[in-house]
Amino acid sequence: ATLKIAVIPGDGIGTEVMPYGVRCLQAAAQAFGLALHFETFDFASCVFYQEHGEMLPLDWKDTLLKFDAIYFGAVGMPALVPDHVSLWGGLLKFRREFDQYINLRPCRLMPGVRCPLAGRQPGDIDFWVVRENTEGEYSSIGGKIFEGTDRETVIQETVMTRTGVDRVLRYAFELAQRRPRKHLTSATKSNGISITMPYWDERVREMASNYPDVAVDKYHIDILTAHFVQKPDVHVIFDVVVGSNLFGDILSDLGPACTGTIGIAPSGNINPDKKFPSLFEPVHGSAPDIAGKGIANPVGMIVSNSVISFEEDKSVWAGQMMLQHFGFHDAAGAMLQAIERVLARGEAEVLTADMGGKGTTKALGEAIESEILSF
Amino acid sequence: ATLKIAVIPGDGIGTEVMPYGVRCLQAAAQAFGLALHFETFDFASCVFYQEHGEMLPLDWKDTLLKFDAIYFGAVGMPALVPDHVSLWGGLLKFRREFDQYINLRPCRLMPGVRCPLAGRQPGDIDFWVVRENTEGEYSSIGGKIFEGTDRETVIQETVMTRTGVDRVLRYAFELAQRRPRKHLTSATKSNGISITMPYWDERVREMASNYPDVAVDKYHIDILTAHFVQKPDVHVIFDVVVGSNLFGDILSDLGPACTGTIGIAPSGNINPDKKFPSLFEPVHGSAPDIAGKGIANPVGMIVSNSVISFEEDKSVWAGQMMLQHFGFHDAAGAMLQAIERVLARGEAEVLTADMGGKGTTKALGEAIESEILSF
Ligand SMILES: CC(C)[C@H](C(=O)O)[C@@H](O)C(=O)O
Ligand SMILES: CC(C)[C@H](C(=O)O)[C@@H](O)C(=O)O
Repeated sequence: ATLKIAVIPGDGIGTEVMPYGVRCLQAAAQAFGLALHFETFDFASCVFYQEHGEMLPLDWKDTLLKFDAIYFGAVGMPALVPDHVSLWGGLLKFRREFDQYINLRPCRLMPGVRCPLAGRQPGDIDFWVVRENTEGEYSSIGGKIFEGTDRETVIQETVMTRTGVDRVLRYAFELAQRRPRKHLTSATKSNGISITMPYWDERVREMASNYPDVAVDKYHIDILTAHFVQKPDVHVIFDVVVGSNLFGDILSDLGPACTGTIGIAPSGNINPDKKFPSLFEPVHGSAPDIAGKGIANPVGMIVSNSVISFEEDKSVWAGQMMLQHFGFHDAAGAMLQAIERVLARGEAEVLTADMGGKGTTKALGEAIESEILSF
Repeated sequence: ATLKIAVIPGDGIGTEVMPYGVRCLQAAAQAFGLALHFETFDFASCVFYQEHGEMLPLDWKDTLLKFDAIYFGAVGMPALVPDHVSLWGGLLKFRREFDQYINLRPCRLMPGVRCPLAGRQPGDIDFWVVRENTEGEYSSIGGKIFEGTDRETVIQETVMTRTGVDRVLRYAFELAQRRPRKHLTSATKSNGISITMPYWDERVREMASNYPDVAVDKYHIDILTAHFVQKPDVHVIFDVVVGSNLFGDILSDLGPACTGTIGIAPSGNINPDKKFPSLFEPVHGSAPDIAGKGIANPVGMIVSNSVISFEEDKSVWAGQMMLQHFGFHDAAGAMLQAIERVLARGEAEVLTADMGGKGTTKALGEAIESEILSF
């Protein structure tokens, strides 16, 4: 069967890295005899917005429902369109309307990548962030009163539902259960955010009773970010880290930053029920400051293909399902190996600036592509 | 005039580090002929709560209003009292009821401290986090509906007022204006948190027009935490970083963690209007896991005296006011120098475990005390 992929490059460096993402997937398809079908769309970008006054065409949902997955670049050109408009009109709408309630992001120190933390070796950092992706702090409910006066007051609500919290916790516990260390860290802030966060803790406690084989820690988000950079000791283990929409967002930028570059980290926006297409994107944004220079790191795009970010841990629940479904184990493994080989060679002409090299998007993208073709 | 200091050790390591904080202040008072008056209170601790069913006695406000400043250890024994109870009944009540709307925390790489970030030297990291300390995400407004059912929904409101946002921004801009680099970074998340955070941005933009000499950057909190650990380049400058209650909380743990240990970072909860006493505490919490072992780092307690944490930058607005008011420049300078000298000696017997040594609270506290007395 053909895997149908909707390609949405978006804005800024999204459009620059996307071609290499697609080429590498095509290379893998060629090397392993897979049938991938790509179709590219210009919507969910600020350029589209400027032409149409909307981020998406009216029939976007029907259009995308025909695909198995969405392959997404990055969105946002804040100088032209306010961020909350461009994002809420596109990417964040996909997450919510396609009920992609899991955002899964690996934090993994890869060989050949310069780590900003002192004295860490590949293998020292290797965990997953599981982020709630549809509710919580990203409610978009609220408003302003007494506008323009000294009493001006703005309110926004954080909304947690039992359904929403439990399903992300369940996913995180099941992921932890399949990992050798079977460890889950919950990000909270119940000492300061005194209503929603104690509720989060309560659900974690309740859910934990179903997974007696998983060891659970909880840390407040402030000290948790501190632990990310501090040398871990026997008491502080990161294996699977689960957090609310906002906390997961923070940790899944900070985590990859601790492993050397957020330029290479992938992000899966997953609807585990497979009622809707899942969306795969690099963690990095559209990076207007370096857009147009051809120096963006394409690795995030390449890895962010679902198959690859899951292959890493064959026992990941959703990944296992997807791999079983599509049967692409070999291609996925080859793509990851190709990336690791290229990075490990450490050639300054090939690695992009964020990795300490002076290579272009093209140089790095093509190096990986040809490595894949050599399989 | 005598400076009247209310001493509240609190819980856990708070009670262990406090004696050394007081002794070092007394040493400074002796060496420089200052008049300090200390009075110790057992409330705002979980032990007090267990006896009285409340964190504070009824007359706490009148009692503390008689003091110039509150010298606070740490609070929290989650195994005995839920965090949100112990904190909202004490520390967070002080912040709000004494309108300590500024939380000021230095992030500074000190000589002799092992930095978890690769290749950084003292001088490379030197900035202030200014945190809004009374409103925002810490509203404590909200509730639960459909309890115990599948529809269970929990809501908490983030509340930003023009008064609340503007006064912390004004403080941050004035602080930036007095620093050589005159740079302000605003922490936001207006791309995801689509009502309160765009409002924050709007107030930053508005306020910036009053301070044309201050350069302003804004970063979303996710990438901002990443920039804290990544090697800064010419585009990413940290000088004064201002954030909401939650974002400031996160950044002022992460920042000190990046400088080696949050065990030594101080925190000033300031009412700049001086209508109420300000509160000074270490950033670290009560640390139940190491409490009772005598190994907690007392430096945060010692530095967390207002005078000292401000002396560092003589031009800090609130600090300048306070120093001018009390006239304690020399004593403050000496205490900071004493700490730096002790740390720079790097003696394993003296430094506590969080700094890579095997010293006790006592060893480190007394080393600093006798260094102060040598002035
Ligand atoms: C203890 C907790 C409520 C507090 C906070 O979140 O403000 C602490 O983390 C701090 O930073 O002082
Ligand atoms: C662009 C932004 C709205 C988004 C988020 O906060 O979810 C991004 O930071 C991410 O992590 O995918």
